Amino acid sequence: MHLPNRGDTICALATAPGMGALAVIRISGRETFATLSRLFKTMKGKTKDFATVRPYSIHYGQLMDQHKVVDEVLVSIFKNPHSFTGEDIAEISCHGSVYIQQSILQLLQRNGIRLAEAGEFTLRAFLNGKMDLSQAEAVADLISAQHEGAHKAALQQLRGGYSNTIRELRTRLVDFASLIELELDFAEEDVEFANRDKLLELVTELQREVRKLQESFASGNVMKNGVPVLIAGKPNVGKSTLLNALLNEERAIVSDIAGTTRDVIEDHLIIDGIRFRFMDTAGIRHTEDTIEKIGVERTMQHAAKATIIIYLCDPAQSEAAELQRELDSLIKGSGNNHAMVIPVINKSDRFDYDQLLKDYRTFNNVVFISAKESRNIDELKAKLAGAAIGSGESGEQSIVTSARHAESLHLASSALQKVIDGIHQQLVTDLLALELKDAVYHLGNITGEVYTDDLLGNIFSKFCIGK
Amino acid sequence: MHLPNRGDTICALATAPGMGALAVIRISGRETFATLSRLFKTMKGKTKDFATVRPYSIHYGQLMDQHKVVDEVLVSIFKNPHSFTGEDIAEISCHGSVYIQQSILQLLQRNGIRLAEAGEFTLRAFLNGKMDLSQAEAVADLISAQHEGAHKAALQQLRGGYSNTIRELRTRLVDFASLIELELDFAEEDVEFANRDKLLELVTELQREVRKLQESFASGNVMKNGVPVLIAGKPNVGKSTLLNALLNEERAIVSDIAGTTRDVIEDHLIIDGIRFRFMDTAGIRHTEDTIEKIGVERTMQHAAKATIIIYLCDPAQSEAAELQRELDSLIKGSGNNHAMVIPVINKSDRFDYDQLLKDYRTFNNVVFISAKESRNIDELKAKLAGAAIGSGESGEQSIVTSARHAESLHLASSALQKVIDGIHQQLVTDLLALELKDAVYHLGNITGEVYTDDLLGNIFSKFCIGK
Repeated sequence: MHLPNRGDTICALATAPGMGALAVIRISGRETFATLSRLFKTMKGKTKDFATVRPYSIHYGQLMDQHKVVDEVLVSIFKNPHSFTGEDIAEISCHGSVYIQQSILQLLQRNGIRLAEAGEFTLRAFLNGKMDLSQAEAVADLISAQHEGAHKAALQQLRGGYSNTIRELRTRLVDFASLIELELDFAEEDVEFANRDKLLELVTELQREVRKLQESFASGNVMKNGVPVLIAGKPNVGKSTLLNALLNEERAIVSDIAGTTRDVIEDHLIIDGIRFRFMDTAGIRHTEDTIEKIGVERTMQHAAKATIIIYLCDPAQSEAAELQRELDSLIKGSGNNHAMVIPVINKSDRFDYDQLLKDYRTFNNVVFISAKESRNIDELKAKLAGAAIGSGESGEQSIVTSARHAESLHLASSALQKVIDGIHQQLVTDLLALELKDAVYHLGNITGEVYTDDLLGNIFSKFCIGK
Repeated sequence: MHLPNRGDTICALATAPGMGALAVIRISGRETFATLSRLFKTMKGKTKDFATVRPYSIHYGQLMDQHKVVDEVLVSIFKNPHSFTGEDIAEISCHGSVYIQQSILQLLQRNGIRLAEAGEFTLRAFLNGKMDLSQAEAVADLISAQHEGAHKAALQQLRGGYSNTIRELRTRLVDFASLIELELDFAEEDVEFANRDKLLELVTELQREVRKLQESFASGNVMKNGVPVLIAGKPNVGKSTLLNALLNEERAIVSDIAGTTRDVIEDHLIIDGIRFRFMDTAGIRHTEDTIEKIGVERTMQHAAKATIIIYLCDPAQSEAAELQRELDSLIKGSGNNHAMVIPVINKSDRFDYDQLLKDYRTFNNVVFISAKESRNIDELKAKLAGAAIGSGESGEQSIVTSARHAESLHLASSALQKVIDGIHQQLVTDLLALELKDAVYHLGNITGEVYTDDLLGNIFSKFCIGK
């Protein structure tokens, strides 16, 4: 469990675990410079007082365990408050063997420096006022970002993002809550400091702003987790072959990036920096083995959640009119009017191309492919990228990507709605005050102007150690 | 294939692959500062000319791809010649996501900086005279060191180690070779610039020095690869149970160190920072299943190469006199007089302890254990550590740990021997000169005063990328 800053000095490996050319060990806290000054010697065997060296300077020398050299290192010095945590920080850049990393961490521990818990450096940055809570969360998002969308959203949040919007909204709420509190103080005199019409006006405006942020979570989530795509179609039209064709082509590119995990390769695709998430594709792959009815129900459930539906059609099975009926029943059955549907004619290599073009000319967006021969898959990909940009990517606008923030916005929105209803129903002032307080509280949770140890523990325990 | 410094600017990820709190990307070469000055902006959006900043300074800002922020980074500046490679170096410390690492490397490549090959930074350090070849090799050893022995040997070699000894020896050889060459120039006059008695004296002394280094390879190899240990004994005395008891106890400690691989755990043990290597223990484990004769032959082969032999004895099978006979036949059969033999009485929990002490009192070093009950295993380990220190670890003395160096020393030694023989047999001067040249060449190979592209390619291709 994380606790507020204990004021002691902490250390951790900051670079990825395992062997590299070099590794970086980070130290933060009051004893950083004193401890390091004891353990460090220049190559000429002289000591150095890091408390007096220039900030943002680098020092070459040896880390000593009594008379034994542990390693030749570079030490970078950052001085409070101009550092990541707002405390004195030293970063030791050592040779990257696991043995040396462990030896140095053990040496530091023998000299009174504690191993940091997960996220503890960023926790300190937050507690020392170097960043608000949503920025701290952006640090974790940034580190785990695996594609351009997630990276962009995290970087935006790190630089303030919607924190500022939320903080501004909250300030206006706090002002109103104070006026209402004031009324409570003078309750017996029955005065009205907070004009109810103006309050209604403000709260309605606030509600609109909060809802806009709430709605941005949908596209924010897309940026972070990928655009949900469903490949639908009758049995045996080649759905799994198409999925494999899409994934296999991409596999080479994805595995170019060291460290991408298997599950990313399996069911995700990155095209033009946008991530696509194929929903429960394992299920889809086996649809053809299961009873027709279950397959259809499942497809409808997935279709309801999809942003993009690739509807695959075998010309031998479905002529244009039949395809139109299938599409209509999919849209109707799923109740999803927002999804972008891409009709895809498969096995097109077995038919006369000009005839196909003519037969299916009424369909917008139609793509003719051969999944088996990997023909025209690039055109389909371009369509996917275009559809995603239409649905998600939205420039510099404030976008919520954190489920925790979405939840807080939801709670704030409920409280605001109760305030609005309360005003309409001429609710007594003290109950109104409670609902306002509630909204203030939930908005404060996002930026960390209000927090509990549990909340911090929850957030920072998801960080990696060393951050 | 590695080629001599192409003079271009190179970059690579220097930290371990995968996700960490931060990652470091290293750039070296002429265009380092100019390129980075184009891509970097301070948080206030200003540019910075890294060519004019103070060396060993750190700069906080954003790495820009046109108008897009790639990441918030710290840039450390090292200026030629006071850097690892002797060239201008910048180290970019970025957020540790794989996506960001790749984005930055791609950005640098789009700006004319080439991805470094394995070991190319260290290769440049060597070519720019920042270290000799044996020191460059020590960098790789240091990074892959997994225990104290290997670490100590690599660090010693990095700081010069026997390079200096070898360089000095070689200079003396070169002086003599010049005198011999001079004789060749005046061959018709039959003068003798190089006094043959003095040459013999010197070459004999050199030979002694080279042989000493050659011999140090045995213990150097022990420091690097571990002390070879054999567990011998009659069938069914509990050899595999003992090995498991030793390994299982240690397993918890070994796996404390993140990144240690399975094969390290399987057949190696680290006690007091010394690594022990159990020879072909898989074979030993199955000895009891094979025909007796093959088992014995195998044991003798292993015993010949062992530094320590644990000879396990079941009191019910072998009384003191019988044990002595077994030990004598092992020593005789293997021809290994140097090995430290530790007689270990197993299953001691089934016998009267005082009686055992009395029965086996004539044996030095004897340890009484129960492998099955893991009893007294610690005492055996302490004995192993003591034996290893007796056999290997040798303070500040020059120790050769590289098989390549041992090979060069062997070739130099052969050449020197031919010189000695040649002097005795009054060999003609030009043949003598050839042998001397040969020795000079092989010694120069170690420190890199003489090298070929093939040799460099061979050495540096074993490095990791980023070093």
